[in-house]
Amino acid sequence: DQPAAEAERPAGNMNTDDQSAQSEEPQSRVPGPPGAHFTPAGSHCSSSVSLCAPPPLLCFRSHCSAMNGVPQRGKLLTLDNMNPKVKRVEYAVRGPIVQRAVQIEKELREGVKKPFTEVIKANIGDAHAMGQKPITFLRQVLALCSYPELLKDNQFPEDAKKRAQRILEACGGHSIGAYSASQGIECIRHDVAHFIEKRDGGIPSNPDNIYLSTGASDAIVTILKLLVSGEGRDRTGVMISIPQYPLYSAALAELDAVQISYYLDEDKCWSLDVKELRRALYAARQHCNPRVLCIINPGNPTGQVQSRQCIEDVIRFAKEENLFLMADEVYQDNVYAEGCQFHSFKKVLFEMGPEYSSKVEMASFHSTSKCYMGECGFRGGYMEVINMDPEVKAQLTKLVSVRLCPPVPGQALLDLVVNPPQPDEPSYATFMKERTAVLAALAEKAKLTEQIFNTVPGITCNPVQGAMYTFPRISLPQKAIDKAKEGQVPDMFYCMKLLEEEGICLVPGSGFGQREGTFHFRMTILPPTEKLKLVLKKIKDFHLRFTKEFS
Amino acid sequence: DQPAAEAERPAGNMNTDDQSAQSEEPQSRVPGPPGAHFTPAGSHCSSSVSLCAPPPLLCFRSHCSAMNGVPQRGKLLTLDNMNPKVKRVEYAVRGPIVQRAVQIEKELREGVKKPFTEVIKANIGDAHAMGQKPITFLRQVLALCSYPELLKDNQFPEDAKKRAQRILEACGGHSIGAYSASQGIECIRHDVAHFIEKRDGGIPSNPDNIYLSTGASDAIVTILKLLVSGEGRDRTGVMISIPQYPLYSAALAELDAVQISYYLDEDKCWSLDVKELRRALYAARQHCNPRVLCIINPGNPTGQVQSRQCIEDVIRFAKEENLFLMADEVYQDNVYAEGCQFHSFKKVLFEMGPEYSSKVEMASFHSTSKCYMGECGFRGGYMEVINMDPEVKAQLTKLVSVRLCPPVPGQALLDLVVNPPQPDEPSYATFMKERTAVLAALAEKAKLTEQIFNTVPGITCNPVQGAMYTFPRISLPQKAIDKAKEGQVPDMFYCMKLLEEEGICLVPGSGFGQREGTFHFRMTILPPTEKLKLVLKKIKDFHLRFTKEFS
Repeated sequence: DQPAAEAERPAGNMNTDDQSAQSEEPQSRVPGPPGAHFTPAGSHCSSSVSLCAPPPLLCFRSHCSAMNGVPQRGKLLTLDNMNPKVKRVEYAVRGPIVQRAVQIEKELREGVKKPFTEVIKANIGDAHAMGQKPITFLRQVLALCSYPELLKDNQFPEDAKKRAQRILEACGGHSIGAYSASQGIECIRHDVAHFIEKRDGGIPSNPDNIYLSTGASDAIVTILKLLVSGEGRDRTGVMISIPQYPLYSAALAELDAVQISYYLDEDKCWSLDVKELRRALYAARQHCNPRVLCIINPGNPTGQVQSRQCIEDVIRFAKEENLFLMADEVYQDNVYAEGCQFHSFKKVLFEMGPEYSSKVEMASFHSTSKCYMGECGFRGGYMEVINMDPEVKAQLTKLVSVRLCPPVPGQALLDLVVNPPQPDEPSYATFMKERTAVLAALAEKAKLTEQIFNTVPGITCNPVQGAMYTFPRISLPQKAIDKAKEGQVPDMFYCMKLLEEEGICLVPGSGFGQREGTFHFRMTILPPTEKLKLVLKKIKDFHLRFTKEFS
Repeated sequence: DQPAAEAERPAGNMNTDDQSAQSEEPQSRVPGPPGAHFTPAGSHCSSSVSLCAPPPLLCFRSHCSAMNGVPQRGKLLTLDNMNPKVKRVEYAVRGPIVQRAVQIEKELREGVKKPFTEVIKANIGDAHAMGQKPITFLRQVLALCSYPELLKDNQFPEDAKKRAQRILEACGGHSIGAYSASQGIECIRHDVAHFIEKRDGGIPSNPDNIYLSTGASDAIVTILKLLVSGEGRDRTGVMISIPQYPLYSAALAELDAVQISYYLDEDKCWSLDVKELRRALYAARQHCNPRVLCIINPGNPTGQVQSRQCIEDVIRFAKEENLFLMADEVYQDNVYAEGCQFHSFKKVLFEMGPEYSSKVEMASFHSTSKCYMGECGFRGGYMEVINMDPEVKAQLTKLVSVRLCPPVPGQALLDLVVNPPQPDEPSYATFMKERTAVLAALAEKAKLTEQIFNTVPGITCNPVQGAMYTFPRISLPQKAIDKAKEGQVPDMFYCMKLLEEEGICLVPGSGFGQREGTFHFRMTILPPTEKLKLVLKKIKDFHLRFTKEFS
């Protein structure tokens, strides 16, 4: 029989496992007696349902079947015997603070009195959820692809019909319900290659090097999977920025690779210094095998836009140190600050001459979820691999084939993003108007956010040069830090209090990583301008109140 | 500097790595001299493009940049230093035979003369690609969700509009372009739970136990991820049927879990015998820690439908032996044979009484890709977890949150599948007509396939009781086996020859597993009836010719 005992323990923050822990849980976790029954107070046999909530917020009806007179025995699959790599995964962007936000929303719907009437979720770059309207042309073509009967309909412009027909002709049985090739629909990969060539001033792009994906996250994890190997001191090390987008640390935990942290320079607008890369790399060589360098440009959560010089330095460093480059460029259209410009890693690589362009191995990632379209729900994306060994590429193709194909509606959407209406086409004017409006509003909100935050004593905020986030630094009084240490990291304590008092959901800086002793939060700049002003004012008032309360 | 040497070796079948190999490649693979340049003859610098093709069929333009006068050095990432677990992954359904089929299609387009005019791809369960038309109601609602302007349009029935409005209201910003909750849109999880309750005669289903997914494959791999742990003799063992759907073996290779094979009984219509489960389990306990039992019902690739008694026996076995049950039930509507009926594992589990229903830990999987809808491209699916430890469930929720959410159009589609038009709604008659026609045609083709194959000397075929495939056994002459052994497994040799001579693409039985010394292939029954008859005739003629040639 199974000797498992069900552990009785406080149902805590599910993201607080120590990332450096090895495959065993800390000894301090004492399992309960055999047959112990974990019952969060007041939570069972209620018929209520909440989204993505952690144990104390949920009703587990099947769990409650233990009340039917049958004694509940230990489970086969428990926190103690499950995959330890999965336990080490953390993902703050949808962590406990978001779960609490969802619960508060429910309480509001049920009439519970709060100091606010709605929760504003500025935790995630989800443009449509913040009220941004979809781009008409994209959605017209998607409707036509979904229900081709509409091709007979006069209300759709000819260019939308043409695009839909071309996509449908490339689909099995002319249906987006057929599987595509695992690498993505061939004509869409061609369109992506043309888009890249045009973007990069004519530098060639080979459709064979394009892999469509389920959002950029899917492609990023896939490339990391190929690169991870070794045990002990030979374990693959992957360099990621601090602060970082936590997909990276989560994927490394799951793949059991070594995270090598390099710090962005907050005092210099979150810029990247090759000296810091070198420091981090040389230190890491003592205990692992560094093989990969990940860059996010424009930055998430930090919003910086890398200069051409910086990118050149990074490429030179990658070549000298034999590192595979991963360039996360999903915010490539989101550049706002004067004097800033997006330079793709591929373009800079090829401009550095054949000594670089034929040697540096690289993958670059893009997505339909960000930029002006913000179509997160479709999970569209692509990667371009450069200088990848043909045998490894065959393995990559094999690996992606196991999941059959990326969602075809997302592939179709990506096709429209890389092949938008042209000046001589009927949808061009509307398309450009909608696109420009979205990007102009974002630029305005980027400026507004920086300006207002920098008027608040105790908040300092770098310019939001690009992407969709601000990552301001907050001074927390020592008393608040001491108070928080009883149960939470200080910036989580701050953000939770902000959520409870003002109904604003942010993500604590600790979810992205930050220099020891500093505190931040990430906030999207996506709310509509008037709402963003309100959010900024509420945060300002809260910060002043918080500072006073703990002084 | 990087000491890597690029290996020079024949570009072979990329799926032939020995699955039992440990983390190192066999010693017999000798790396080439440093700087050796791997150049598949005649393949580089051509501008042609092919889909998912292995090295010998591709042009690697960036690879060819080595010809620009710059000596090509060893790659950072090579077959020798990449993730060995990924190398061990095999997925025959989209393996080398399909890549050859795609190449032949291209040759036909280019005017190359062949003994046939089209390639018929009966290798994968892709209904729309085989000409099946999408169900009107599903696509109408998807078009409305994609482009809500159409809600003003009188051409759409009211029930389609109502469904679309309900889905949109549940989306952030009323857009399917917003991220959903990671577990899936709440109202859709409710609809799934109602669907399960109705299907299972009222046995309760809790929406908190429903996780929407990116097709069933995604959910299956996610559950396996939770369950895998341990090293050496403690490594998690997972029982899978032979023949199996190769997603399972591929996932186990990638997760470094131990595959425990149990054989289905071909002589008894591919039925499952608990004695065989016990044999396999007890043998495996000598070298690993068996924790999971995977069942596919109706069967893929074998098409059997399990009896209620068999399911009860399996559940009892799982409970006695402390195994987590994974029930792959994606073909639950695809049951054709008289006397056969689909019984869900959950229903049988709950009918066995609280001693079972409160204890056996289980996950059941479903998909929008099969049944009558065949909407593979949308990557919709769900799983229901039963009796899962609440703390493990919180880890599951955390894990799925890293990938943000399943594609929202796929979630919307799933909602329509679990909540189809009702008898009092305007779309009901058309919906039922379309649904019935698809399932009736499949039933007819299932029978036809069995009948015709069994008239061929050297082919024996069990009844296709359900699912979408036949897995007939083929007798191969010894001379053919000897001939094949020079480079291929014999059934791959057979299927490749069939593809070259008749233009029919099947998957060799070796891709699914089969008893030593037996040979099979998997063929879908999806081609339209007239085309299916042609396919069956061509295979018959080929088989007779093949047998004669090698006798």
